[in-house]
Amino acid sequence: MRWAQAMGKATVANVGCGFDVLGFSVDCLYDVVTIKRCSDFQGVKLKVLNNKKVPNDPDKNTAGFAVKEYLKLFQIQGDGLFVELDKRLPLGSGLGSSAASSVAALLAVNAIYDNLATKEELFNIGLRCEQLACGSAHGDNIAPSLYGGVILIRHSNPMKVIPIPIPEELYCLLIHPEVEVNTQDARAVLPKSVPLSLAVKQWSNIGALITGFCLKDKKLIRDSLNDYLIEEERAAFIPHFYEMKDIAYKSNTFNLSISGSGPTVFSFSDSYDKLLNEKEKIEKLLEATGISCQTYLSRLNNKGSYVQSMGE
Amino acid sequence: MRWAQAMGKATVANVGCGFDVLGFSVDCLYDVVTIKRCSDFQGVKLKVLNNKKVPNDPDKNTAGFAVKEYLKLFQIQGDGLFVELDKRLPLGSGLGSSAASSVAALLAVNAIYDNLATKEELFNIGLRCEQLACGSAHGDNIAPSLYGGVILIRHSNPMKVIPIPIPEELYCLLIHPEVEVNTQDARAVLPKSVPLSLAVKQWSNIGALITGFCLKDKKLIRDSLNDYLIEEERAAFIPHFYEMKDIAYKSNTFNLSISGSGPTVFSFSDSYDKLLNEKEKIEKLLEATGISCQTYLSRLNNKGSYVQSMGE
Repeated sequence: MRWAQAMGKATVANVGCGFDVLGFSVDCLYDVVTIKRCSDFQGVKLKVLNNKKVPNDPDKNTAGFAVKEYLKLFQIQGDGLFVELDKRLPLGSGLGSSAASSVAALLAVNAIYDNLATKEELFNIGLRCEQLACGSAHGDNIAPSLYGGVILIRHSNPMKVIPIPIPEELYCLLIHPEVEVNTQDARAVLPKSVPLSLAVKQWSNIGALITGFCLKDKKLIRDSLNDYLIEEERAAFIPHFYEMKDIAYKSNTFNLSISGSGPTVFSFSDSYDKLLNEKEKIEKLLEATGISCQTYLSRLNNKGSYVQSMGE
Repeated sequence: MRWAQAMGKATVANVGCGFDVLGFSVDCLYDVVTIKRCSDFQGVKLKVLNNKKVPNDPDKNTAGFAVKEYLKLFQIQGDGLFVELDKRLPLGSGLGSSAASSVAALLAVNAIYDNLATKEELFNIGLRCEQLACGSAHGDNIAPSLYGGVILIRHSNPMKVIPIPIPEELYCLLIHPEVEVNTQDARAVLPKSVPLSLAVKQWSNIGALITGFCLKDKKLIRDSLNDYLIEEERAAFIPHFYEMKDIAYKSNTFNLSISGSGPTVFSFSDSYDKLLNEKEKIEKLLEATGISCQTYLSRLNNKGSYVQSMGE
């Protein structure tokens, strides 16, 4: 019987100032989904490996839900699909865990059905999965996981995914302190309205950051990552946030900010060595205060998630 | 005695969604300032041509004020400067009239003193002139008039001017209905705070518009000009705004929005012919309702204001 295996990359949403509109995917961290077409049952069965908190009910898990929505869209009936989700991303980490699962599942199921769906159709199913997982259909994890690169989401109807080129030799450090942040809690602390003057500062930074990416101007990227509206509210969920930020400042990297709704934080730099130095200092800080953490250091690139292997 | 003559280009600030951060300069419309160094008096004298409403007092006019601030910055004493301002831009038009005067004056006086000032220093004096003229030191008219092209202003300290490349073959139509809008009145109607959800829509458009300019993607430019926060409040100052917008829509140009605080409106298109068609229809509409207007159709380019001629 036909089978396919795909990875779904982790993602950093918001990217400093770009709340709800910017995201990029991370090379070194992903979920893996393997789907087998079976003849001994009908519908979708799910098995989750490596994380007992993730439900095996396909309606309560973005990997299973994504496959069911895919079948519905293309009116595929009568088949049995066995979905195995190797859950490698930590939950509630701010690394787009739910999106990584759904993207991997969508790529795998699409491979089984000879790529019936366009990336745009997969993106739209992914949005519904985010609605299931987080209560809002935001695209800033789904799109970068699916397309790679830095992605801008335009909040038009329909949402538009705009890939932005990335300069060569840009590296990213991720620090995931082992505390769980629920996306809905992190959204609840957001201000309902913002002063126009601060909104203008924020969108002047978003514009400058995007110009920096497009024109490959690393200094402009560095100078434009600051958020004025969201970070302060969410920093409260993240242990030692301002001390980590201070270490980034002293390490002379491009800033440190929150990945998605946290608690993972990220830094950019064009120097791998500076990020390595920052990583070691932050690990020491968190260790000294009894907080476990995982850290990842990766080059940014334009390759999103993909099908690793398939067979009959 | 030495003399120099410079033009100061008109500018369109905001550019649809980019309130207080984006602007571009317009080729076909400018003020002209001629400055002569004189030996028969000390200080700055000003004469305004073509507009009796503009005060001849150099402290109450951005051309005169700019020259005085320039002299102060470089501690130039004892010289007499005769400033002649040929005021060609309409006042209160939303075309950056005050900025055009100060930029022309700054370029002319800088030419007389062998370019003592960098563009950055001229920009900073220009900001103080905007403070004098409009009550706030915004840079989205000064910078595009001085630098040319589409300019993004980052609201950092100090403000940063970020030039953005412009695609070839992009045209702009300007319609100036002859009603005066005071910049301070137009700022008074702005909301003090905005819903976060609308701010996100706005900055997703700003990001997309800038990406469209950088990547020379005209469709993206076209689709991203919409403003969600400012236009509606200011449209009330502009006669027949929504009828003009409808004509732009039917003419299949890139949208119609307010230039600065109005009443001038602008449209983009990659088709000169479509803008010409739009221009004729809007002229007819305004004429039929008894409103005089000036209209201008110009190609966008990267050349800002400059010194036209100088001599001894």
